[in-house]
Amino acid sequence: MLSALTLPVDLAMRSGHITLRRADESDLPALMRLLSDDPISASRGDLASDADAAAYRAALLNVTADPANELLIAVDAAQHPLATMQLTRIPGMARRGATRLTVEAVRVSSDQRSAGIGTAMMRWVTDVAAPALDVSLVQLTSDEARTDAHRFYDRLGFVGSHRGFKYPVG
Amino acid sequence: MLSALTLPVDLAMRSGHITLRRADESDLPALMRLLSDDPISASRGDLASDADAAAYRAALLNVTADPANELLIAVDAAQHPLATMQLTRIPGMARRGATRLTVEAVRVSSDQRSAGIGTAMMRWVTDVAAPALDVSLVQLTSDEARTDAHRFYDRLGFVGSHRGFKYPVG
Repeated sequence: MLSALTLPVDLAMRSGHITLRRADESDLPALMRLLSDDPISASRGDLASDADAAAYRAALLNVTADPANELLIAVDAAQHPLATMQLTRIPGMARRGATRLTVEAVRVSSDQRSAGIGTAMMRWVTDVAAPALDVSLVQLTSDEARTDAHRFYDRLGFVGSHRGFKYPVG
Repeated sequence: MLSALTLPVDLAMRSGHITLRRADESDLPALMRLLSDDPISASRGDLASDADAAAYRAALLNVTADPANELLIAVDAAQHPLATMQLTRIPGMARRGATRLTVEAVRVSSDQRSAGIGTAMMRWVTDVAAPALDVSLVQLTSDEARTDAHRFYDRLGFVGSHRGFKYPVG
């Protein structure tokens, strides 16, 4: 948990609003569904399979117990889960000692895309969470195949200046 | 400090060896020089300027005090600084609850490149540090302009599957 963040928070969209709050263990099934809800995620093994529930539960407890990490879930007025993302605050030497905020695992439910949920969440990250956490750089990586997501981040003012490399261990 | 890592460690190269050890406050001038030692870093403001020493010192103390981060420096037999990098262990939900190891700020002194130092350091990350930290994915981003670095990571088995986005705050 990133204790400097004021949560839950209501976020206005073009139409209506959502509530962004800290995820907890009761959100496990919703988080598993959101993580599996596109073909690219599914191709990496995120299939919301019951067989993986123990691994996801352990990960959820690790993330929520970590003082440098925040696991978030966005819900509508009926508490229906719409989206998730994870934030990690990382101190660093480069860029004159910049502390960074990394955003991972941004997922909006496939039946809710283009409603402005992603925009509202990322604007909160850059305009509210980043200053509250005293970071000077927000960063994320997005699979090269997610061309719609790249246009989305471009529009928000993110600069796609880097290549992201992954190495699977073992 | 990532206490699960056994450091310092000797790393063999094609010719000779280097010692990889935890950085401390006495390494500040060397780290500032290494971080500034290429045009891309310099263009982002890492100029080893005395005016920035306090910011770098604060960052160094933050990183070395953090239980999820490790700041490393590679030195030769005469304790001459050759290279640096930072590791961050990040628990996460995606990829079936994968814990990741992020590598940031990899810098090899410009007069030491192509000597195998980078290879020795990254092989230690993937083959020794990653298992010791129980992570299943090592990840990093590299500026699109660093085409030599991209070939280097490709050769090591990293997959450049992602685009890295940065958003400067404020």
